[in-house]
Amino acid sequence: MKIIIWASLLQAVVSFSVPKTSVPRSSSALFAEANGSAAPKKILVLGGDGFCGWPTSLYLSDQGHDVVVVDNLSRRNIDLELGCDSLTPIQPMEVRCQAWKEVTGKDIRFVNLDVAKEYDLLVQLIEKEKPDSIVHFAEQRAAPYSMKTSKTKRYTVDNNVGGSNNLCCAVIDSGVDAHIVHLGTMGVYGYGTSGGEIPEGYIDVILPGGRESNILHPAYPGSVYHATKCLDALLWQFYNKNDQLRVTDLHQGIVWGTNTPQTALDERLINRFDYDGDYGTVLNRFLMQGAMGVPLTVYGTGGQTRAFIHISDTARCIELAINNPPKPGDRVEIFNQVAETRRVRDIANLVAKLTGVEVNYIPNPRQEADENELDVSNKKFCNLGLDPITLDTGLFDEVTEVVKKYKSRCNPQKILPASFWNKKRAEACADLDPKSVKLAEEKTEAAAP
Amino acid sequence: MKIIIWASLLQAVVSFSVPKTSVPRSSSALFAEANGSAAPKKILVLGGDGFCGWPTSLYLSDQGHDVVVVDNLSRRNIDLELGCDSLTPIQPMEVRCQAWKEVTGKDIRFVNLDVAKEYDLLVQLIEKEKPDSIVHFAEQRAAPYSMKTSKTKRYTVDNNVGGSNNLCCAVIDSGVDAHIVHLGTMGVYGYGTSGGEIPEGYIDVILPGGRESNILHPAYPGSVYHATKCLDALLWQFYNKNDQLRVTDLHQGIVWGTNTPQTALDERLINRFDYDGDYGTVLNRFLMQGAMGVPLTVYGTGGQTRAFIHISDTARCIELAINNPPKPGDRVEIFNQVAETRRVRDIANLVAKLTGVEVNYIPNPRQEADENELDVSNKKFCNLGLDPITLDTGLFDEVTEVVKKYKSRCNPQKILPASFWNKKRAEACADLDPKSVKLAEEKTEAAAP
Repeated sequence: MKIIIWASLLQAVVSFSVPKTSVPRSSSALFAEANGSAAPKKILVLGGDGFCGWPTSLYLSDQGHDVVVVDNLSRRNIDLELGCDSLTPIQPMEVRCQAWKEVTGKDIRFVNLDVAKEYDLLVQLIEKEKPDSIVHFAEQRAAPYSMKTSKTKRYTVDNNVGGSNNLCCAVIDSGVDAHIVHLGTMGVYGYGTSGGEIPEGYIDVILPGGRESNILHPAYPGSVYHATKCLDALLWQFYNKNDQLRVTDLHQGIVWGTNTPQTALDERLINRFDYDGDYGTVLNRFLMQGAMGVPLTVYGTGGQTRAFIHISDTARCIELAINNPPKPGDRVEIFNQVAETRRVRDIANLVAKLTGVEVNYIPNPRQEADENELDVSNKKFCNLGLDPITLDTGLFDEVTEVVKKYKSRCNPQKILPASFWNKKRAEACADLDPKSVKLAEEKTEAAAP
Repeated sequence: MKIIIWASLLQAVVSFSVPKTSVPRSSSALFAEANGSAAPKKILVLGGDGFCGWPTSLYLSDQGHDVVVVDNLSRRNIDLELGCDSLTPIQPMEVRCQAWKEVTGKDIRFVNLDVAKEYDLLVQLIEKEKPDSIVHFAEQRAAPYSMKTSKTKRYTVDNNVGGSNNLCCAVIDSGVDAHIVHLGTMGVYGYGTSGGEIPEGYIDVILPGGRESNILHPAYPGSVYHATKCLDALLWQFYNKNDQLRVTDLHQGIVWGTNTPQTALDERLINRFDYDGDYGTVLNRFLMQGAMGVPLTVYGTGGQTRAFIHISDTARCIELAINNPPKPGDRVEIFNQVAETRRVRDIANLVAKLTGVEVNYIPNPRQEADENELDVSNKKFCNLGLDPITLDTGLFDEVTEVVKKYKSRCNPQKILPASFWNKKRAEACADLDPKSVKLAEEKTEAAAP
């Protein structure tokens, strides 16, 4: 089984073998050379300890870049707050960096710094490191957590918007012309509000009087988390206009998958895997539930169509963005970082068919449309050579194996939704009982209702 | 002279005499009855100590509403920071409230509270007072100050966006269905980007494929301050959609004038007047310079066209907004709170002609277009009965008299621009010498260059 998984990953991700010396460069690096500047860069990865940040940091290091991870370990702290933990046993950053060095001979440095709060240290770091690029993942990234309480709403706004604003100010103050690569979200666009294919960032409109214009796509966020990414977008626009900051904003779909060829090299490098109702992303949650023998929890009708991307492609897209920065004076570059769109109930049915578990339609904790169509352009990355990984049951196995391996670390009471968008949604979900969820070995019981 | 001033104000502002009992109600109150609910309301005025907040609080109290001013005195603290002060001698809030009680018999209560930082106290206050309306002025309101340093950029974002988000969360947490009336700015729209008359908040567009839509006007802020109002707008939109908050956003023009009939009742009630390069608004700055015999400082070509409103109309518009709240479930209501548009150099020439001082064109400290047209709709307030005060040389005299009376309090070194939008603008303004500005009695000398 394991061979099939890795064969599949090998084919999909192109780069698998990671030589301990830097020669020969991996095929991905050659690919990058054909599609932008492949000269090794100094890169700060803000939020480089997280689910997307860590595999991206390894990938960039693997490609020969000089990577400094900057993180305040907030994601680990939120685990403590929620009484939950990554299903996979993630190691302290020091151990992760040491393991990477042992396995590949490459250095990744780690700086513990709060981008939203420790402004002066951030400026000093940029002045000292003079990065070519700063990848900005340092934001609270879960929509449910952002809607949990007024405390988490306020934290999400203060952390995300304050952090992005700090980053702009720090780049200006430092005088270093670093290219900012920011992780946005497809959720900034809303779902199906454009009346057609969602373009990449900017949309053509005809204004009253017949004047044609190309504007930032109207913002229709569906949670406080998504709202912060819309607010970020306006900050990028302003600082780009006023200070000629070079910014690329990546509107990413829902990420699935666990490990990448780099994180799979050593168990100490393993990526985090969130299975709880707050941080677990929908497809990973289904795959986890399927592997655990727990009914799949579909919110509402499951008619929501969403965009998806595999974690390995996240890392590849970040490097493509780094290697293809906007020219000085260009407006903010925006890419849709997605592979494909799928309807949630279709994915649930696919996973149910593979695993034999049932699909449980539960009341929707979110305030959102029951059903929507979604058509998304991803031409820009494809034009840069991306051949995105699409939903592939072979790749599903990778997640399933991980889940089975670490099943004993799962607290099934954390699987059901634990955050509700408003009072009405909380009332609708009042009968959901987290304690009703039992793993297969114990007793399989459908979650309420 | 003074009689002419007040006759003019009397005509313009409708309400002048303030009876010590609540009967008869002023004509403005009767006017409100014809144009919305005139029942007295409980109103929290966040930022009620400021240039717009204080006269608005008095006006609302005068109209019979129960007013609680909530302020952390941040504007007074920034005076200390800038080594500057209101030209008019403003009294402590306790004295202001006591004077209002003595003069009118009406109570205004004052709560010292930081909306952006003291969340729990804000929730408690809303729970206790159960206001019908919450007027939200509690934001750092000067574009130049917001561009001064990274510290002021960050303060402006944290204070303004954090405060607005806190307000939404607090209203939701309290369970009180208070109507939020927020002071936005015309600057959210940018200048002349719509290709025609700027509509009130929402603009009709035709999307690709010919689908018609009515969207929030695209945001084109010209400073960090203006950007925060754009960010606010997205927060109102989100919380309105998710929690049915009732919100009115008022996109106000540049305010001019000093006193209103209410603040003029007693010197202890006097409104603040900012003449410095950071907080002085353009027309008030010209009037001050004219009265002081200092050359008028026009930034760049003076070809910027801007929207204007008199301080008395600010207060009247707020009450119109309060009396005409959106219905439950309505989207965010947006008014343009402006009387007219004027080109900056035309205003300068008008003031120069009246006062005999010269016009000095100095390098522009701001990153903005040299020249722009501006056509703005203000139909909604006019439809509610507003007959706005337009630029009137009779009303200019009111400002001139105030300036002359308190001239001794002026520090002329604070008049020139002290904040620059970016390095290029700072370099362009390098020859401006604040010390070159002398008041007429001493020695009139043109400001550099």
